[in-house]
Amino acid sequence: MEKLYIIKIGGNIIDDDSKLSSFIRDFASIASKKILVHGGGKLATELAGRLDVQQTILDGRRITDADTLKIVTMVYAGLINKNIVAGLQAMGCQAMGLSGADGNLIRAHKRNHPSIDYGFAGDIDSINTALLIDLVNQGITLVVNPITHNGAGQLLNTNADTIAQELARALTAYFEVNLVYSFEKSGVLLDADDNSTVIPTLQPAYYKKLREEKKIFAGMIPKIDNAFAALDSGVKQVTIGKAEDLKQLIAHTAGTNITND
Amino acid sequence: MEKLYIIKIGGNIIDDDSKLSSFIRDFASIASKKILVHGGGKLATELAGRLDVQQTILDGRRITDADTLKIVTMVYAGLINKNIVAGLQAMGCQAMGLSGADGNLIRAHKRNHPSIDYGFAGDIDSINTALLIDLVNQGITLVVNPITHNGAGQLLNTNADTIAQELARALTAYFEVNLVYSFEKSGVLLDADDNSTVIPTLQPAYYKKLREEKKIFAGMIPKIDNAFAALDSGVKQVTIGKAEDLKQLIAHTAGTNITND
Repeated sequence: MEKLYIIKIGGNIIDDDSKLSSFIRDFASIASKKILVHGGGKLATELAGRLDVQQTILDGRRITDADTLKIVTMVYAGLINKNIVAGLQAMGCQAMGLSGADGNLIRAHKRNHPSIDYGFAGDIDSINTALLIDLVNQGITLVVNPITHNGAGQLLNTNADTIAQELARALTAYFEVNLVYSFEKSGVLLDADDNSTVIPTLQPAYYKKLREEKKIFAGMIPKIDNAFAALDSGVKQVTIGKAEDLKQLIAHTAGTNITND
Repeated sequence: MEKLYIIKIGGNIIDDDSKLSSFIRDFASIASKKILVHGGGKLATELAGRLDVQQTILDGRRITDADTLKIVTMVYAGLINKNIVAGLQAMGCQAMGLSGADGNLIRAHKRNHPSIDYGFAGDIDSINTALLIDLVNQGITLVVNPITHNGAGQLLNTNADTIAQELARALTAYFEVNLVYSFEKSGVLLDADDNSTVIPTLQPAYYKKLREEKKIFAGMIPKIDNAFAALDSGVKQVTIGKAEDLKQLIAHTAGTNITND
């Protein structure tokens, strides 16, 4: 099967023009088929501040009220997405930016939580795999932003890590999918404050041991659990590391490779 | 050849939630292949006001400085585009929202004017006709916003009427293209303040006569000139009328039909 990379970039790269340009250059240089999934960074929070729209973050998740939904739709689906697409086009990469509403790519429902009202936060129901494959096979590099829809006209704000994972799962039957989560750390670290303590390879048994010894910092656990879940659903490889190291992450000479064996 | 409608909606519809819903329903009900092109309405001006970004309009064109470009990218390519797409999806229409940067759909250059600096206003150089045809033939209804790019990473703000016209021209060799400009008036009027004075059919000779008699109000002249130019480049039919009358415009029972014969 043909190789396909799904690469998630985190907020700290998006907030930094020079890091973003450099990332765009590295991403465009990947010869294989590829999809980019991006989050939002601080731009949405900053715009909310300028517009006096109060922001509430609960358990690391933004509460998306109606005004915040407008802001993230403008910033994620508009400003960030189109600037990344234009940047990739300038590198000769045939990029196309889509939200989950476009082509019914990602359908979600408003999160139903027993005690917290997350507002217009969307949990994924389905991926339009047929469209995804059509576009990828046309040589198009999709740039996917975290705005989804519920099929009844409501836009929703979905976690970009989860979008990357669900796109990966949807494509495992058709491509050899390599999922890369790039963020501000150099990989899964033994010491959260020391980028030199990257674990190069993480298998289930070693991960279990590290968790028992409480050597994995709490913020990483959902990411790693998601990575193993992705492997279990047929994703070939999951790599976690620093966005600035994208080329080395692809070459497996940096970051943490999460693997079942 | 198969019929294809290219429909431009004006700002006054976008600014009004109930009119927009109704328009979306009417548009979705068109059985033929179709493309929607939208402008911006007052939302961008309103957001600029809230962010204290001074707006300058010269000869009816917005001067797009760097901050204004960010605003229109957020509002046109993000908020408006994604809400229209989600609304169409809810009506069972397989809509996909694209800017001119997406898939290199519309390439433009920064306007070069001898005396006025329009800022990041973009005049169109080329349309990616192959992509346009691929997507249309996949049964996708494109929703095109006026943000374009220059191929070197710069987003630009392009006139939506011109985008509709250039998309129409690009497709005339492949489809029987019907171009519909919907706006706040009922059509081309003999008396600008009286919607009952619609001219049902306008041919070159009649238009020339009306212009000589100064019976066409100035604001309509560029629209009509564009319409005749579109016909000359192979567009089958151009119709101008009220967005609320979309179904009747399609049925040719309302609005002004501009024709060469």
